[in-house]
Amino acid sequence: MAIDEALVGIRSGHGGPFGCVIVKDGEVLDRGHNRVLVDNDPTAHGEITAIRKACSKLGTIDLSGCTLYTSSEPCPMCKAAIVWAKVGRVVYAASMREANDILGFKDLRIASAFREGRDLVPTELVRVEGYLEPFLEYRDKQGKIYRGPFGGLINSVGDGSAGMGRPVCI
Amino acid sequence: MAIDEALVGIRSGHGGPFGCVIVKDGEVLDRGHNRVLVDNDPTAHGEITAIRKACSKLGTIDLSGCTLYTSSEPCPMCKAAIVWAKVGRVVYAASMREANDILGFKDLRIASAFREGRDLVPTELVRVEGYLEPFLEYRDKQGKIYRGPFGGLINSVGDGSAGMGRPVCI
Repeated sequence: MAIDEALVGIRSGHGGPFGCVIVKDGEVLDRGHNRVLVDNDPTAHGEITAIRKACSKLGTIDLSGCTLYTSSEPCPMCKAAIVWAKVGRVVYAASMREANDILGFKDLRIASAFREGRDLVPTELVRVEGYLEPFLEYRDKQGKIYRGPFGGLINSVGDGSAGMGRPVCI
Repeated sequence: MAIDEALVGIRSGHGGPFGCVIVKDGEVLDRGHNRVLVDNDPTAHGEITAIRKACSKLGTIDLSGCTLYTSSEPCPMCKAAIVWAKVGRVVYAASMREANDILGFKDLRIASAFREGRDLVPTELVRVEGYLEPFLEYRDKQGKIYRGPFGGLINSVGDGSAGMGRPVCI
């Protein structure tokens, strides 16, 4: 089904040949394909698109218990997004190596750079005045942020490591 | 300015304490802060939000020549997104380690897993019938996809490695 979604994407001219389906309790929750070109959005890979749609539909940022089926091994951006979204399991059909050999995408180059701790883009640390202020204010006010306008989300943002008054990871 | 954007985000209750500004030719192109909670989107980190907005504004997926200023070292998802968007340079204020020490976000855990080639989410390769079909169809039809409805994008999706009839990386 993820393969079919990939074909829908390229036949529509939306972007690269990648499709993704998210399943919960045996039911398809949502599906997505690469929409990088049609949306002018370099982050709109199949997995990211499907995660966004599924989270929007469920009104949560927590896809625990969901399985993400994807036509091709997720790139590092999507792999990290899968962790942030707390997806329970991933099944993919083609490997990054196969995608690279046929199409030459950058996934492998990014994965190698991460493995070696290298930045592919020149990156510089500049500690400007007050740079820790957002962290400290967030830590001090977090109860208010989460229990105020977003009170209903308190359970969906926990990730198991958030007990003992520790700030919630998002 | 990225720090201010982070403060705007948390004071609005939109999400985590992260802000980002994208600059081109000395002018602010766009800015973004973490909107994970308000958008129910676990991918809506500050950098991703700013990249999406900047690309949408410019009508491109290529931010070559842009500098991305961010209040905190980009997480692996955002680092990879920065590569996909071809951002020219990154400047950040707080390190992942500082964010981790104060707030305990998952960035470091994800970065360590990438470094060690480990998957944090159980991941399985299942080669279903026809799994390479999208790649092959995309390779064969790419000229049509890029020069048809999206003809105008042909230059903005090249990444230097796309010459000699090689498919374009997106």
